[in-house]
Amino acid sequence: MIDGALLIGGESRQASDRFTAVNPASGETLTPDFSSARADAVAEACALAEAAFPAFAATDLEARAAFLEGIAQNILDIGDALIERAMAESGLPRARLEGERGRTVGQLRLFAGVVRQGDFLDATIDPAQPERAPLPRPDLRRINLAIGPVAVFGASNFPLAFSVAGGDTASALAAGCPVVVKGHPAHPGTGELVARAIQQAVKAAGLPAGVFSYLPGETNELGGALVADPRIQAVGFTGSRAGGLALARIAAERDEPIPVYAEMSSINPVVIFPAALAARGAALAKEYVASLTMGAGQFCTNPGLVLAIDGPELDAFVRDAGAALTDSQPATMLSPGIHASFEKGVEALASHSAVTTIARGKVGEGVNQAVGALFQTTAEQFLADVALSHEVFGSSSVVVRCASIDEIIAVVGKLEGQLTATLQLDPADEADAAKLMPVIARRVGRVLANGWPTGVEVAPAMVHGGPFPATSDGRTTSVGTLAIARFLRPVCFQNLAPALLPAALRDDNGWSIARRLDGKREASPR
Amino acid sequence: MIDGALLIGGESRQASDRFTAVNPASGETLTPDFSSARADAVAEACALAEAAFPAFAATDLEARAAFLEGIAQNILDIGDALIERAMAESGLPRARLEGERGRTVGQLRLFAGVVRQGDFLDATIDPAQPERAPLPRPDLRRINLAIGPVAVFGASNFPLAFSVAGGDTASALAAGCPVVVKGHPAHPGTGELVARAIQQAVKAAGLPAGVFSYLPGETNELGGALVADPRIQAVGFTGSRAGGLALARIAAERDEPIPVYAEMSSINPVVIFPAALAARGAALAKEYVASLTMGAGQFCTNPGLVLAIDGPELDAFVRDAGAALTDSQPATMLSPGIHASFEKGVEALASHSAVTTIARGKVGEGVNQAVGALFQTTAEQFLADVALSHEVFGSSSVVVRCASIDEIIAVVGKLEGQLTATLQLDPADEADAAKLMPVIARRVGRVLANGWPTGVEVAPAMVHGGPFPATSDGRTTSVGTLAIARFLRPVCFQNLAPALLPAALRDDNGWSIARRLDGKREASPR
Repeated sequence: MIDGALLIGGESRQASDRFTAVNPASGETLTPDFSSARADAVAEACALAEAAFPAFAATDLEARAAFLEGIAQNILDIGDALIERAMAESGLPRARLEGERGRTVGQLRLFAGVVRQGDFLDATIDPAQPERAPLPRPDLRRINLAIGPVAVFGASNFPLAFSVAGGDTASALAAGCPVVVKGHPAHPGTGELVARAIQQAVKAAGLPAGVFSYLPGETNELGGALVADPRIQAVGFTGSRAGGLALARIAAERDEPIPVYAEMSSINPVVIFPAALAARGAALAKEYVASLTMGAGQFCTNPGLVLAIDGPELDAFVRDAGAALTDSQPATMLSPGIHASFEKGVEALASHSAVTTIARGKVGEGVNQAVGALFQTTAEQFLADVALSHEVFGSSSVVVRCASIDEIIAVVGKLEGQLTATLQLDPADEADAAKLMPVIARRVGRVLANGWPTGVEVAPAMVHGGPFPATSDGRTTSVGTLAIARFLRPVCFQNLAPALLPAALRDDNGWSIARRLDGKREASPR
Repeated sequence: MIDGALLIGGESRQASDRFTAVNPASGETLTPDFSSARADAVAEACALAEAAFPAFAATDLEARAAFLEGIAQNILDIGDALIERAMAESGLPRARLEGERGRTVGQLRLFAGVVRQGDFLDATIDPAQPERAPLPRPDLRRINLAIGPVAVFGASNFPLAFSVAGGDTASALAAGCPVVVKGHPAHPGTGELVARAIQQAVKAAGLPAGVFSYLPGETNELGGALVADPRIQAVGFTGSRAGGLALARIAAERDEPIPVYAEMSSINPVVIFPAALAARGAALAKEYVASLTMGAGQFCTNPGLVLAIDGPELDAFVRDAGAALTDSQPATMLSPGIHASFEKGVEALASHSAVTTIARGKVGEGVNQAVGALFQTTAEQFLADVALSHEVFGSSSVVVRCASIDEIIAVVGKLEGQLTATLQLDPADEADAAKLMPVIARRVGRVLANGWPTGVEVAPAMVHGGPFPATSDGRTTSVGTLAIARFLRPVCFQNLAPALLPAALRDDNGWSIARRLDGKREASPR
């Protein structure tokens, strides 16, 4: 089932450049070897995507929804081979990957529902007012149209839910955009299995083959060529800050610049308010370390920063967290490269003159294992060196001792943009939290209380985004139904004959969707 | 009433650098002279805007709506002095400026209605599902929050409707964003009168003074410093392609890049289909020249390109349009600079080897007058030199003779992004138009039939935007209620206590707005 091919539209093709995947738990090279796509394959896939665009964008809502459900079913039909291959390529445990498969399939089905509902079209009709003085008002109708072919860059840390058929692909296809996936080189077998599932769904749905292509590879040139291709109209990316910024630069320098939705880096501050710290510091310490070390800390929403007021309660919290971390087991990281970056980041913190190491986790026998790391510093020192606020991807976190709520607020106000911020608070802390809210809401995409940031619900109200550098575009989200908005743009039709209007804008409302009439929204029908 | 000051928050201050405005109709310098803002004023205005942001963003809907209405009333209260000053500074006639004042006031009132309605908040609630297996769903609530202080660059061609209190300012204030306006140097007296009206409205509403500042000036450094200021979070701009791109570059190179909404250049293709050309070519020729020469052609939506099939009907159309243009009166342009650019653009077309001059309009006695210009070429020649598709701001237009509908479609498919495209068609043309629709819809923000692109309705369904280079961000509009979306970003609140939630997200829905509950929208209450 895995033969290392590029999937270009309906075709499957071997390339002469090859690369291999590594089992990070053993360091062993996995078979088979894989095609590494070059510029010619990019051009071919993009040409097919462009050719497929008009027909795919014009599919009716039911056909597009059924196509998304077809992908979901095909992924399930791969069966355990998908889980086993993903385990071998990522070092992630079975239960995690089974859960992630459920989420991936759930996302595709959720977007099928979004498509059927039709609210994403934002269909808006201002009827003509022929009698208006001094000038009559024309008939104006607005709808969101698909933006064009989309390039998707899979992430290593969610080889299913944020990769080939992940949230970016699901939302772009739901919008009516063909997708060209740049396959992540850390899990090419997993990627190929999923890509074939999509390719089969395209064929079964009778769609043009160019609706989907899959280009695995390990070179930066591949990604650059894809973003630079003039047929690509938007980019979805999840990965490192350096990678996201490089793609954003290429996109901005095109003759026609295009939007890049890059989800990049975040340290996800957790503020522990005094009453909560006093009442349940010991429990919080354990939860914190559990969230920090879950999945070897390889989450975009990993709690990399804790802010609390200095004093005996914080001393106890630090002691308890340190004890929990000391007992934490080492865990295989996703790739040798990610492991090396983690080690480098931890070493930089450990050797920083303003930082004290609270604890390290257990050291294991295996290769590429994250050993948890917990550090502390003061607010003053934290603010004095921006390097202390840079993400260390993995189970590393810094506790910052602050003098007061005002100092916590000052630190939060100077943080870069974040995906999340967490408040641990008891009712007695609410007045303090209210002072922090306007400051923290400006820095993040999601504020959560009395939980931990890891674990991102896929839902209409979710925002997995945030100001730069959490993302390259803080006006959007990459998780949840709102993610579809990234791949749409509004177009207005003035005085067009019904036959020339998109179906959703005709008077008969044949798709039975909720619309906005003369400025007033109708309720969703479903 | 006009003393040439900078308005920084609630203050009025003279700067040592000065500049003057010119009456384009006479070439005479107008009094008084004006302060030209420098970097220190930018920093001060931005600091005040930042300080004002939390309180302004937290205003309730009624207070913010009333503030917008207060601005509108204050502008009306200036009375005829505003019209007379704008006439002197722009060369535009009284009726046009009175109409533009009506539109400016109408936009502010429209956005007051948008604010009261509250749909722009996109309030979305996914109630907790504590019983869900395997994991409970948290309580998730999402809302659009104001993005932060906004920089607005006024346009010269709408000294009221797209300047100090124009669409960008109205939509940014409606979103809850403080605004720092970089005043256009072509109409500083008009700008100051309107800026004082806003300043007074800020004071009357009891808002922090930093909600609005006005920085006139004539240097590129002023605009650059404003966009580079770290407190500015978004930019609204209407003007030249070179100007918009320069600001976009500065914004992209900031430590924290920010969105730039620049409305730049468009030649607004008009396709005349065969049946329409045969049936009413003479009338279309007259309407075309009327649209082309209206306001000296100084509209973003000026019809700069006509596409039609070669033949005797097109010969007649060209003859009729040429005759109408030959009879057209010269008209004063907005500024000596715009006039010089127009002359240069017309001269480049007139001397182009692949272009024939059809006609020129009447030459007048006055200075800075546009003399209409009508050219023709073939599709083949048009496609061979991209310079032929560049905007010439003013009453200059090119008729492109095409061999067939397929050639028209090919030309449209190769055009850069446009604000509008116009179809002149009769019922017999609908089959041809249907072939063109998917191609043309990708290139533009608005498609209109059997009208002319000049004249942009301010309404919920309007899109005054379009792919690059019509704008720097084709996902939005700068006219109509959707323009508010440019200055918002979504934030999610998870398991927050009611006291810490924005009012619009609390269970009691105290603002009585329509929300989305568990993925389903409610109808707008008003």
